[in-house]
Amino acid sequence: MYKEHIRVGLLGLGTVGCGTVEIIQKNREEFLKKTGSTIQITKALVRNLNQPRLVKTEGIQLTTNPQSVLEDPDIDIIVEVMGGIGLAKEYIIKALENGKYVVTANKDLLAQHGESLFEIAKAHKRSIFYEASVGGGIPLIRPFKHCLAANRIKSLMGIINGTTNYILTQMSVAEKEFSEALAEAQAKGFAEQDPSSDLEGRDTAYKLAILSSLAFNSKVDVSQIYTESITEISSRDIMYAKELGFVIKLLAVGEETEHGLSLRVHPTLVPIGHPLASVNNEFNALYLTGDAVGEVMFYGRGAGSLPTGSAIVSDIIDVVRNINNQVENSSMETTFPRKSMVCNEERVSRFYVRMKANDQSGVFGSVAMAFGEEQISLDMILQKRRDFNVAEIVLVTHDVNEAQFYKALAKIQSLVSIRNLSNVIRVLERG
Amino acid sequence: MYKEHIRVGLLGLGTVGCGTVEIIQKNREEFLKKTGSTIQITKALVRNLNQPRLVKTEGIQLTTNPQSVLEDPDIDIIVEVMGGIGLAKEYIIKALENGKYVVTANKDLLAQHGESLFEIAKAHKRSIFYEASVGGGIPLIRPFKHCLAANRIKSLMGIINGTTNYILTQMSVAEKEFSEALAEAQAKGFAEQDPSSDLEGRDTAYKLAILSSLAFNSKVDVSQIYTESITEISSRDIMYAKELGFVIKLLAVGEETEHGLSLRVHPTLVPIGHPLASVNNEFNALYLTGDAVGEVMFYGRGAGSLPTGSAIVSDIIDVVRNINNQVENSSMETTFPRKSMVCNEERVSRFYVRMKANDQSGVFGSVAMAFGEEQISLDMILQKRRDFNVAEIVLVTHDVNEAQFYKALAKIQSLVSIRNLSNVIRVLERG
Repeated sequence: MYKEHIRVGLLGLGTVGCGTVEIIQKNREEFLKKTGSTIQITKALVRNLNQPRLVKTEGIQLTTNPQSVLEDPDIDIIVEVMGGIGLAKEYIIKALENGKYVVTANKDLLAQHGESLFEIAKAHKRSIFYEASVGGGIPLIRPFKHCLAANRIKSLMGIINGTTNYILTQMSVAEKEFSEALAEAQAKGFAEQDPSSDLEGRDTAYKLAILSSLAFNSKVDVSQIYTESITEISSRDIMYAKELGFVIKLLAVGEETEHGLSLRVHPTLVPIGHPLASVNNEFNALYLTGDAVGEVMFYGRGAGSLPTGSAIVSDIIDVVRNINNQVENSSMETTFPRKSMVCNEERVSRFYVRMKANDQSGVFGSVAMAFGEEQISLDMILQKRRDFNVAEIVLVTHDVNEAQFYKALAKIQSLVSIRNLSNVIRVLERG
Repeated sequence: MYKEHIRVGLLGLGTVGCGTVEIIQKNREEFLKKTGSTIQITKALVRNLNQPRLVKTEGIQLTTNPQSVLEDPDIDIIVEVMGGIGLAKEYIIKALENGKYVVTANKDLLAQHGESLFEIAKAHKRSIFYEASVGGGIPLIRPFKHCLAANRIKSLMGIINGTTNYILTQMSVAEKEFSEALAEAQAKGFAEQDPSSDLEGRDTAYKLAILSSLAFNSKVDVSQIYTESITEISSRDIMYAKELGFVIKLLAVGEETEHGLSLRVHPTLVPIGHPLASVNNEFNALYLTGDAVGEVMFYGRGAGSLPTGSAIVSDIIDVVRNINNQVENSSMETTFPRKSMVCNEERVSRFYVRMKANDQSGVFGSVAMAFGEEQISLDMILQKRRDFNVAEIVLVTHDVNEAQFYKALAKIQSLVSIRNLSNVIRVLERG
């Protein structure tokens, strides 16, 4: 019943591919004991045969010909770590058609084409494993499919992008400006040269699409996720937030409400006592609430060659077990329908607002009045002298319907005493 | 291939049994979608048929006859939530012999007899699932077997006993005395009327035995775990710890060193910035370091009817998937040998020491000298006037071999200027 030798073909031999090779070489003996099989990477698809690698590739045949990997009858498992959409998708489909199990770290691909890929896998009685697609080595996918399967997940909140978390942490802890913190993140390899997908929240939205489809048992279109960038956060916001008892984090938030799913990515004021508030620098965490388990948090390194390799290799080990137990497709991704989404205007949030006003009597009264007219009550207020004749007003509302909030905000912007609206950031409810 | 109806027999219908029933009744539809089968609890073994229950038991046949459950040919899965050792063990063996899958929350039983039970399960091609035995609903067992399977675990540290963590948190945050915090924990249901197994660390040692056997791929005898009680911790220790930048937690610690496994349960000074330091009250957490994944932490509620029920039902769901995929025994618990253990004297630790001394010149010098003679260097020192003529000396050593440390301590105790040694507590290395 046990297959003595399991052979793996890699698509891509970059950072994560090399991490995968390193782990398999290092812990080979343990894997044999854990699975009953030897696991060997026999081929790797690369772009350039002569490029120097970070790991020893002895015993691995490097090739630039995808067919040589995808159609090799001795290969049982294809590990896709090349990234991108077009070719990766084509190769994964080919692998499934050829009866191979697939392990991938490709969040962009799964968030955008997961639905069709899972159907193809099912049709060919094969599975796609993707623990590495979100949160590096932190177990996030399996908990939803297995450990927390008893639960109806009420909400999830995640810090699942290390780049933005590093920048926001440095702005907060080391009081750096945004541009300085970004440059440092780039120098340390925590941010790419073109960091726009991270900074604008797209990377986080892809990951949220994957997590929330599992958490809420629904197909999710990434285009339906409301996404805000962190580029507007200034050191002033971070300072005022601290004064009010918060830190600012880029959160991925998913909730199942009676009106449908609410999925969003935005900078958020997190109360200092909340477990997510102390997740700093390149660390990631997912905090969720299940109807049975209550609050649970998973914390760890969300990226890097070995942490992500850890998730890939753990997936490989589970695939080997499936092969040995002759489990074909056992995925649940295809069995759930699409749930409806809460539209933006229906959402309820707390807001932090920072604005500059003329430093004259009655200014705050007129702001409070505009909120009052929309039945919006205020939770916290700061008013500071900023410059000669200029006051800065910072306030935090209680829960408010977003449409109503923006109506009040439009009124406030039109007040003559208000010079400008500096920033608006959502605020997390205190537990 | 799918078995349409899966029938479950419960052994015990106390707190966790009722939580299990409640979750299965509530999320029935989702479970059908997740597994392809309906899951129904058909029988429950109880001690008293007429006792009022916390859940509706319609459709569940209550019985006082174990055979009626264990030998029912329609029952696929036996869930053991009765606790205790003797009968629980007998029933689980009977269930396995009758070809049933077993789910259990019984940490005492697994820590003491897991080895033989896993062998029996394997012989009958059945599995024992036990996610609920440690950490309530927090996923801890599966991560070791699956999500982190790629890793060689270097160390783990856990706050895995809610009773002691509640007491220590209240002593620290609310500045209560031990007896007061214990009485409150009992009133709130966080501590049992006889709390000795919790306070003395035995409950934690059982859980550590289970976790470390998975983490380090070794059979573990619970009797080899060094265990210390929290009953000697006074509010003075907590106060001084805080002054030095620590909180006191009861930690389960496991490490794989070149000399073997080091497994221990003891009160520990944890640096305030460490993720475990902010795990408060009844919450549990496990913090571990893998060679690939780096640091990971799992956090949540470690006990209670619904959290523990969440783990039980998630196990049931995985068993149902195994039944439908015709996976027989797939456990790895039996494939690893027993690793050697580090003996106590060989262990290396940092220590906090509090002692009362005569308030006279040269006292501290003689203490420092005694440590110096054993090549023990000191990291932190506090000296306070306590009463008329009495000084309190508090110090934290650097890493030291434990045998050497106790040798120095014996010398210090024999000094005429030392009135008594008030407490000795281990200290966690700052990350």
